[in-house]
Amino acid sequence: MDQLTLLNDRIISRVNINLSEFDFDTEGFVKDALDHEKMLKFYAFYGITSQHPIFFDFKHSNIAGSYFLGKCQVSRSTIYKSDIRGDELKRAGDKIRSAKNIPLVEDERIVIRDSLLYKTLVHSNSHNLENPEEFSIHNTISAHHANIHGSTMEGCFLGAFSTVDLMNLHSCIVGEFAYVQAGELFHRKIDPGTVWIRHPNFEFKYRFEKGILDNFVGVNASHQPRGLIYDFVKEREHDYEKLFDVMNLEPYEAPQTSAVNRYAVIKGKTRIGENVLVAQRAFLDNAIMGDGSNAQENTYIVDSTLEGLNITAHGGKVINALMGHGTFVGFNSFLNGKPEAMIEIGERCIVMPHTIIDPEVSIRIPAEHLIWGFIRSEEDIEAHTISLDDLAEVRDTLRIGKMVFSGKGSIFLDVFRKRISNILLQNGARFHKGENRGHAQDDQNISFNLIQPYATGKYMGLYPSIRIEP
Amino acid sequence: MDQLTLLNDRIISRVNINLSEFDFDTEGFVKDALDHEKMLKFYAFYGITSQHPIFFDFKHSNIAGSYFLGKCQVSRSTIYKSDIRGDELKRAGDKIRSAKNIPLVEDERIVIRDSLLYKTLVHSNSHNLENPEEFSIHNTISAHHANIHGSTMEGCFLGAFSTVDLMNLHSCIVGEFAYVQAGELFHRKIDPGTVWIRHPNFEFKYRFEKGILDNFVGVNASHQPRGLIYDFVKEREHDYEKLFDVMNLEPYEAPQTSAVNRYAVIKGKTRIGENVLVAQRAFLDNAIMGDGSNAQENTYIVDSTLEGLNITAHGGKVINALMGHGTFVGFNSFLNGKPEAMIEIGERCIVMPHTIIDPEVSIRIPAEHLIWGFIRSEEDIEAHTISLDDLAEVRDTLRIGKMVFSGKGSIFLDVFRKRISNILLQNGARFHKGENRGHAQDDQNISFNLIQPYATGKYMGLYPSIRIEP
Repeated sequence: MDQLTLLNDRIISRVNINLSEFDFDTEGFVKDALDHEKMLKFYAFYGITSQHPIFFDFKHSNIAGSYFLGKCQVSRSTIYKSDIRGDELKRAGDKIRSAKNIPLVEDERIVIRDSLLYKTLVHSNSHNLENPEEFSIHNTISAHHANIHGSTMEGCFLGAFSTVDLMNLHSCIVGEFAYVQAGELFHRKIDPGTVWIRHPNFEFKYRFEKGILDNFVGVNASHQPRGLIYDFVKEREHDYEKLFDVMNLEPYEAPQTSAVNRYAVIKGKTRIGENVLVAQRAFLDNAIMGDGSNAQENTYIVDSTLEGLNITAHGGKVINALMGHGTFVGFNSFLNGKPEAMIEIGERCIVMPHTIIDPEVSIRIPAEHLIWGFIRSEEDIEAHTISLDDLAEVRDTLRIGKMVFSGKGSIFLDVFRKRISNILLQNGARFHKGENRGHAQDDQNISFNLIQPYATGKYMGLYPSIRIEP
Repeated sequence: MDQLTLLNDRIISRVNINLSEFDFDTEGFVKDALDHEKMLKFYAFYGITSQHPIFFDFKHSNIAGSYFLGKCQVSRSTIYKSDIRGDELKRAGDKIRSAKNIPLVEDERIVIRDSLLYKTLVHSNSHNLENPEEFSIHNTISAHHANIHGSTMEGCFLGAFSTVDLMNLHSCIVGEFAYVQAGELFHRKIDPGTVWIRHPNFEFKYRFEKGILDNFVGVNASHQPRGLIYDFVKEREHDYEKLFDVMNLEPYEAPQTSAVNRYAVIKGKTRIGENVLVAQRAFLDNAIMGDGSNAQENTYIVDSTLEGLNITAHGGKVINALMGHGTFVGFNSFLNGKPEAMIEIGERCIVMPHTIIDPEVSIRIPAEHLIWGFIRSEEDIEAHTISLDDLAEVRDTLRIGKMVFSGKGSIFLDVFRKRISNILLQNGARFHKGENRGHAQDDQNISFNLIQPYATGKYMGLYPSIRIEP
């Protein structure tokens, strides 16, 4: 049997054993998702920059089409068209505030072993206190456009467009389009379309109706995604091909304080302001990117204006929208405005991760509101938003529509605002006169190294062992 | 001072110390040849294939524009637009016939240290009996289009378009367009345009007149090349650029038994026969490549026909020529026919390395002749050729024009024919029904990995440390 089949079969059996209590078989997903032809053809690449400590170690793996930055170690794994971004990993000497200021003895690394990540994004630093130098992903399979954000995991299956945020997961299944940020979970199955944040001082819960979710992100019998969001992404895939076909691209004209990654698609009358970060695999078409705004990996900004200091988190899609100053759009949100049904989001609004706005008529949400769930019409707004001022008053339990919030609203807002402020800082949105450098300033000078697998012979399909150090 | 300047200054001082007895300063050459801008911009690449054992180890070096295949180790060196081809290195267990059949304990590696190679070709296995596992190039500087063929060296300077073949060189200067194959040399200066083969049983010597040589390969005060051959190469350089700009090229249509490297330039009405090898950086324009013919690295076949089983060794240039069946064209030969002054070389002729034919009227050399030196007119043929039959009869000394041959002509021919036969075999020209595979069959499925240097920061200009194993 060929090496790729052997490799994937081993991963399937390992994940299946971890998930045996759920009677869950990942084989169907893997066999249907992977195309060995493409795994032989696509190159992988890693970034060389003076801004992040460098360590890459690839062994006995296929990493076709994937991008690596920062310190990463990959063995016995298939990583297909994924982004493994270790540029915010902790460094030796950093202290972990939540664990009595224990200092790291060496730089943190992303360590992926016996896992299969499919069009997945892995980013930011882990929150595993027990092993702070290692951001580990073991015996895990993730499906299309899953988001592993600062989360260690072992023995898990992540469905398409799911997000696992700042947590540790053991033998769990996360349903498609579910968002979880819940500290640590063992042997749990999270239903599709769940949006769940659990914090010592508050909890946020929402779940999409199955009938609605199916239109946007459904899966077929072998866990391959389908639906409107999947189609939207799929239709734009070929726009990336020419970026990968050409070695030296003329850099896109942008202010000196901004970074437009050469693996981002830029189309139409797009304008880039100061301190703007456009990450690889971002897609901009007729996008006005105001000063200090960003488009992270796998985001789409189409026929829209971001007024400034806007965050569009990984996988966020903003179409025919006017985003007021300082808005935040959470992971994988789908703001699907149309020319005849525009979306206007007021200043400093927070769009919760995995929110879908798919309006039939124009929609306007006032400034400083929290927005979640599913909004199709003006009537839906009331049941899916709350003013931040009102939220700050909540001390016990708040139910609006299908959303349940419990705990202290003020702390929730505090945590969220700190995170937003930190993201802006990290991304370089606050850069001024040489102070507050971030990704927008530092990611301008990345060199990309390209690697390919053996095309024939006994190792066919595998990449050679590669070890890169400064 | 920046890293590239530091690196090159160290190399200059090391080479200069080795060559101090000649009062030779390499600084002028290095400073004028290197363009730091380009050293930052060009990528390097290495080949991944199941046919050759893989080991690449790059450290503290700039390797811009260079290509590596087989086992190579590079440290503290500048390797600019060079080809380091270790695909014919000896393997563990191979026995060295000329040294009582000592077996190699591990695979041979090319080891380059504290050296600067500029548009240089390093190829084939070394002939250093004392250290058979290491093909070493230390403290050495080589200029444009130098050819290091199976030769170890320390403390040397190789001039532009020079060739050092199957030997060991210590603290030597090899003048431009000189060809040396003389076993082992210490502290020698080889004059420009010398063609010298020394063998226990024979010796061949020729030297171009300075006035003639200067037209073809001269150097200016800082050892930068100029002249007709240099101009010819320089004018075609931009044709390579598009090959390096594009990631995935549609492979050139060729028979299944032939390999056309994706980094070769193919233009005009070129036709590729069976069992043909076209190496990287070969240049074919209106070339008819007969069955079993090859175009090695840095060769140019322009408006010419190769009838079959023809060898064009590294750097050979064949223009407006008809090459009979089984001809051999040695390193860096310049067969510069014109539409109104064609060159016809008969079957099984041997064109010695570094031969120049630059005719004003059509020239025809009959079958089975040895050809050397400089031929411009029909009258020159007599003083620069001999029939192989006549040569085989020579037992003592033969002087023709400025050429001196001494020793046994039959052994000379024997050695040459064995080498030709071995080259054809290695290149896959003899492939038939699955037998006698060679480069033409094995080099079809090479994957290329691309690497770039740090673009900013304290390591700017250097490549990260890279180690690749199977």
